[in-house]
Amino acid sequence: MLRYLSAGESHGPALTAIIEGLPAGMPLVVEYVDRQLARRQGGYGRGKRMSIEQDRVHLLAGVRGGVTLGTPVCLQIENKDWVNWRETMDPGTDARVDDRMVTRPRPGHADLTGVLKYGHRDVRNVLERASARETAIRVAVGTVGRRLLDKIGIKIVGFVRRIGQVEADVPELDPDVLQERTETSSVMCPNQVSSYKMMEHIDRTRDTGDSLGGVFEIRVYNLPPGLGSYVQWDRKLDGRLAGALMSIQAIKGVEIGAGFHGAACPGSEVQDEIFYDQDRGYYRQTNRAGGLEGGMTNGEPLVLRAAMKPIPTLRRPLRSVDIGTREAVEAAYERSDICAVPAACVIGEAVVAWELAVAAMEKFGGDTLFEFTGNWERYLASVKGG
Amino acid sequence: MLRYLSAGESHGPALTAIIEGLPAGMPLVVEYVDRQLARRQGGYGRGKRMSIEQDRVHLLAGVRGGVTLGTPVCLQIENKDWVNWRETMDPGTDARVDDRMVTRPRPGHADLTGVLKYGHRDVRNVLERASARETAIRVAVGTVGRRLLDKIGIKIVGFVRRIGQVEADVPELDPDVLQERTETSSVMCPNQVSSYKMMEHIDRTRDTGDSLGGVFEIRVYNLPPGLGSYVQWDRKLDGRLAGALMSIQAIKGVEIGAGFHGAACPGSEVQDEIFYDQDRGYYRQTNRAGGLEGGMTNGEPLVLRAAMKPIPTLRRPLRSVDIGTREAVEAAYERSDICAVPAACVIGEAVVAWELAVAAMEKFGGDTLFEFTGNWERYLASVKGG
Amino acid sequence: MLRYLSAGESHGPALTAIIEGLPAGMPLVVEYVDRQLARRQGGYGRGKRMSIEQDRVHLLAGVRGGVTLGTPVCLQIENKDWVNWRETMDPGTDARVDDRMVTRPRPGHADLTGVLKYGHRDVRNVLERASARETAIRVAVGTVGRRLLDKIGIKIVGFVRRIGQVEADVPELDPDVLQERTETSSVMCPNQVSSYKMMEHIDRTRDTGDSLGGVFEIRVYNLPPGLGSYVQWDRKLDGRLAGALMSIQAIKGVEIGAGFHGAACPGSEVQDEIFYDQDRGYYRQTNRAGGLEGGMTNGEPLVLRAAMKPIPTLRRPLRSVDIGTREAVEAAYERSDICAVPAACVIGEAVVAWELAVAAMEKFGGDTLFEFTGNWERYLASVKGG
Amino acid sequence: MLRYLSAGESHGPALTAIIEGLPAGMPLVVEYVDRQLARRQGGYGRGKRMSIEQDRVHLLAGVRGGVTLGTPVCLQIENKDWVNWRETMDPGTDARVDDRMVTRPRPGHADLTGVLKYGHRDVRNVLERASARETAIRVAVGTVGRRLLDKIGIKIVGFVRRIGQVEADVPELDPDVLQERTETSSVMCPNQVSSYKMMEHIDRTRDTGDSLGGVFEIRVYNLPPGLGSYVQWDRKLDGRLAGALMSIQAIKGVEIGAGFHGAACPGSEVQDEIFYDQDRGYYRQTNRAGGLEGGMTNGEPLVLRAAMKPIPTLRRPLRSVDIGTREAVEAAYERSDICAVPAACVIGEAVVAWELAVAAMEKFGGDTLFEFTGNWERYLASVKGG
Repeated sequence: MLRYLSAGESHGPALTAIIEGLPAGMPLVVEYVDRQLARRQGGYGRGKRMSIEQDRVHLLAGVRGGVTLGTPVCLQIENKDWVNWRETMDPGTDARVDDRMVTRPRPGHADLTGVLKYGHRDVRNVLERASARETAIRVAVGTVGRRLLDKIGIKIVGFVRRIGQVEADVPELDPDVLQERTETSSVMCPNQVSSYKMMEHIDRTRDTGDSLGGVFEIRVYNLPPGLGSYVQWDRKLDGRLAGALMSIQAIKGVEIGAGFHGAACPGSEVQDEIFYDQDRGYYRQTNRAGGLEGGMTNGEPLVLRAAMKPIPTLRRPLRSVDIGTREAVEAAYERSDICAVPAACVIGEAVVAWELAVAAMEKFGGDTLFEFTGNWERYLASVKGG
Repeated sequence: MLRYLSAGESHGPALTAIIEGLPAGMPLVVEYVDRQLARRQGGYGRGKRMSIEQDRVHLLAGVRGGVTLGTPVCLQIENKDWVNWRETMDPGTDARVDDRMVTRPRPGHADLTGVLKYGHRDVRNVLERASARETAIRVAVGTVGRRLLDKIGIKIVGFVRRIGQVEADVPELDPDVLQERTETSSVMCPNQVSSYKMMEHIDRTRDTGDSLGGVFEIRVYNLPPGLGSYVQWDRKLDGRLAGALMSIQAIKGVEIGAGFHGAACPGSEVQDEIFYDQDRGYYRQTNRAGGLEGGMTNGEPLVLRAAMKPIPTLRRPLRSVDIGTREAVEAAYERSDICAVPAACVIGEAVVAWELAVAAMEKFGGDTLFEFTGNWERYLASVKGG
Repeated sequence: MLRYLSAGESHGPALTAIIEGLPAGMPLVVEYVDRQLARRQGGYGRGKRMSIEQDRVHLLAGVRGGVTLGTPVCLQIENKDWVNWRETMDPGTDARVDDRMVTRPRPGHADLTGVLKYGHRDVRNVLERASARETAIRVAVGTVGRRLLDKIGIKIVGFVRRIGQVEADVPELDPDVLQERTETSSVMCPNQVSSYKMMEHIDRTRDTGDSLGGVFEIRVYNLPPGLGSYVQWDRKLDGRLAGALMSIQAIKGVEIGAGFHGAACPGSEVQDEIFYDQDRGYYRQTNRAGGLEGGMTNGEPLVLRAAMKPIPTLRRPLRSVDIGTREAVEAAYERSDICAVPAACVIGEAVVAWELAVAAMEKFGGDTLFEFTGNWERYLASVKGG
Repeated sequence: MLRYLSAGESHGPALTAIIEGLPAGMPLVVEYVDRQLARRQGGYGRGKRMSIEQDRVHLLAGVRGGVTLGTPVCLQIENKDWVNWRETMDPGTDARVDDRMVTRPRPGHADLTGVLKYGHRDVRNVLERASARETAIRVAVGTVGRRLLDKIGIKIVGFVRRIGQVEADVPELDPDVLQERTETSSVMCPNQVSSYKMMEHIDRTRDTGDSLGGVFEIRVYNLPPGLGSYVQWDRKLDGRLAGALMSIQAIKGVEIGAGFHGAACPGSEVQDEIFYDQDRGYYRQTNRAGGLEGGMTNGEPLVLRAAMKPIPTLRRPLRSVDIGTREAVEAAYERSDICAVPAACVIGEAVVAWELAVAAMEKFGGDTLFEFTGNWERYLASVKGG
């Protein structure tokens, strides 16, 4: 069973994750992970912190000579800013914990509820962990899962569909073309015209001190049918994927395939009829289901969308309450981005990769990559020709 | 840790669930659960099977004299239709398994992928479990969770927002008023005008042999702040709730608070500023976050919406492939509903109740109801008065 | 991931279990399970209740025509005594819960701690679940796991080593011979001389109104190397097996291979040197490790022993305290056995079978029996021939 | 829910663990953990590596100013030897993985099975993780759990009962006296005479190039009744504790209370009758059950024993097989200890502490130490006075 835990405060020494259950013999190098970390930090509309960090992952266990050992993999990303925060954030006894204390919780964050739940009198003790900085390690973990999916030919392409008022039309495209067009856009939008409009929208919004949300879409290709299962409530892959996406900071909506739009259509317009061809096996001519039927992949591309709310930190101060004095104050302000939808898209790819890797390990099993891919091949053959 | 497993085929002898981790001393009677089972079976636009079943739950363990014992609770719902299916579905050796064999998988269901994944040559072996009949036991289980929430004053109201083309406007209302208006509607829509339009829409659609989907909304009141947590990726309550809703059959989209709409707004329009009042404690004047910030309840009402695709079984046959001959055929047709959005809403309430009960047990713990409610009371006092 | 939950009070309507994660296509009939249930109820020295019950398992889900469907399997064992207890134990509201109330906790049982933990004022609310009656369903569940092990040739033989003062010498034997000799003994001891001595010991003890414990041993043959893992603390099979055995009612000690005796030997006497032979692959000439090295099966027979304390219910009353009045009283007495070591041995086989089935599913995976056995075959070939 | 994962190879850069589910506000400093790490490295009869390492834990997350934050705690222990192994063990691509390759598996270790299971051709890829070095991080993790137990007055004392042929008699003693006597012994045996005999035994064994095992005992004081539960098979604390102890490297037997000895006694001699006193509440005059009845603590001291086999690495070579050539060879030899029973005892204390901390969090819950201890206090009051 593939599983992981992560730890780490935003201004602490490092973010760390331990991944358990990977097969032995899977190639894994830091560069592969770092590429995704860099993508997370990019995107038009980001604030300054992103350039400070330049995240790099360190492998501390589970890999030797570029290949997994079957033992737990330990990933670590150092916080570059740590040197400036040591005195405040030291996990040891010497931290001057009253320095840089925050008592004005920011609306839209975990701040207020976090201090109530955990009995803190310093909001910093909450925001350090609830921060979107945590997603750096989630990207690293998901990317390790993605490495496993590579080995059975699964390809994940995420892109931005909407930023604020600008929605892009994105047709069905060859995965490689889709990826290429996405990569050439500063906002990860494969529609060039929309891409420019989005950047303009970001520029205008920066001027007003406001912030923007949006929608990203993730498509996954070459999935075998039968990942996930209908047999038990907690094994349905649609639920797991939606849960993974919704657990990303600032995500407030998730759709699969036709999603909310499909809810408004008559049944005769939202089906994907079934066809068979000796070369292709079973296939569909449409994909309104977004690749998921009965809580399982059905062999068609996975199509997921997630809605991100605008970043809650605005230049214009928001009203809040000091948790010490209970007096009305302006919320704390930490430097921030105008728009983080492209970053969220990269995180979305990672969490989707993770859930798919878990489902693939459940379906194909194996303690070695050789067993895993062998089981996959035999299953595919049985599914197609049988 | 509150957990459960369920079992049961649609035409087998019974649906069964075992719930583990409830505190002792919680009142629980079958009538409480049956009321929700009846709601699930109601709603304008349902087919005939619903009237056959008239579900009743049996308590087989964990309760005595109307009160939980702290031991596992076993729930069972007999399938009334079992008498007619015994010869075909008998779990023993004597079943005539080739009777009523299904070889034409229905698009939009688990049928095709299920037979590929589990190596079946009879689609019945899949559809019997993947069927929405399974949601009866999920409602029963969720309703047991709801009983626990009752005890700390939490109230759940679900209603239908959209059926096909008809979307209802539903204002902020007092929970009791909202519930009352919903109960008087055959489609569970608290807006009377929309309610009639929805029924008309269903009638017209029945005539054309088509089917309808829609959107339901669930609001939860009197939640304490701090259910769920930001500290680990898999403990975020927004993720868990979205996962629970998306795992319901036919659900293809989930939103929290402003959801997809919020993604199009500027940040200055989607915040919920923080206020304090000695009587109320911390509160908000708006609730765009839908009651969830940082993966936790923030004390405001929870607002969740889910999009249901139209039921995939149409009177007009859909193209499919016979899994035995691989020839093009028309998909199997089982009698069905035109619209099941009200039923889905009841199921939605149940799965949300379950996730909240799990989160409440995590937050307040206790082996007895007395410990549970005591911990809740003390926490609420600390949160408010400080 | 293979998992299960069970429920059921001793005098309630039934014991129920739900098993999740079995592959489809595995033959499973009630007779196979009932045979083990009958073995659990047998054995020299049992009390009367055993003959009342004559347990039979009912399959309520997950099986059709004698073969698993890949869906959850629901097992149920009715409590024959239920008819006599209905009025007292009814899970509904009408139970006369004050009838047959027990307020004198029995030493050596969960009675006293159970009422303190769960806030009961009737010990019956504890003893009904903590009772060894619960092991009937554990035997049923474990036997389903055993069915899976059959399919890859794994054979489990349990026998009694000691009853009270009588310890039997049992040499290395062919598994079939060992099983046969065990089956012909009323106390499940394959050494005929010791077997008679044990029965005499039981007879003498019955006369004195006392009770007896003992030690049983479980040997498992034809295990592949590599079940379990050293990579994470909670995946070590030695730990899991010991945990499973120690969680059986009245078990107070567990040993693997040389066990406590090995702790007294010099290292040079407790090793199992490694040999290789083209036909057999790697093998050992000794088996002091009891088939487990590094938290994994090493391909040699598994050898486990468990120590059972004497049954705590004696004819001679034990001192206790009334939980209502806090006055010194004699403990409650429920009719009981003199010696239940043979029954415990059958339960031991079942829990060991379950843990091995879980480990085998982890190692070989597969949604169908065909995938599972195919993966096993290929692994075995790789292990042997290299 | 308290949980953890660990990672790290023996000669890799570090051992790391992430602990999830600790309450906020618990004091935690490195010195507290380091003290237990030092104890693990001590003990008469250890080899040289112990003095190389001098383990120190680093806190990388979850703690600030010496107090837990409620967020995941990350612990790291650097491997001092890493500088000498970097070129061989580098997790990056540049490791010269063929240097220091091991092809002669050692009997009694994970070596042979590990390479078969994970498809390695270098035994090093197995032994680096299966090594007892891993127990350093288990001690660190368990010690964090112990910190929580401190807060509700629970005291854990472990000591050595047997080394090879020398068994010590250890009477009931006041916990502080027992601990003090244990601390003054180089072999952690509180019986001074036995302690000297054990050292002599170790000395003689060193001369012969052999190794020794033994038995350690762990007693836990001031436990509340009701940790663990009888309600579900996997919640029984006796099973969990036995599993934790048996999962320690080289442990082959576990006993609770009277253990195997009790299996030979008549029932009338192994009960713990129940008494009540207004000051003490319920109590026993004997403790044959070792503090566990019905899978729960019963309020009496916990008494656990574990048998450790002699260390399998002997100076006299053992027969093995080269995994490359399949030829008979002498097993690899890595420098080693003569006797590691005192170290195992420290590890035993740690894993027992962890399981008890998990059980205590389940029983008392709470997101803050204040909630946790408050719940504990109220429960104790209800248990005693009622």
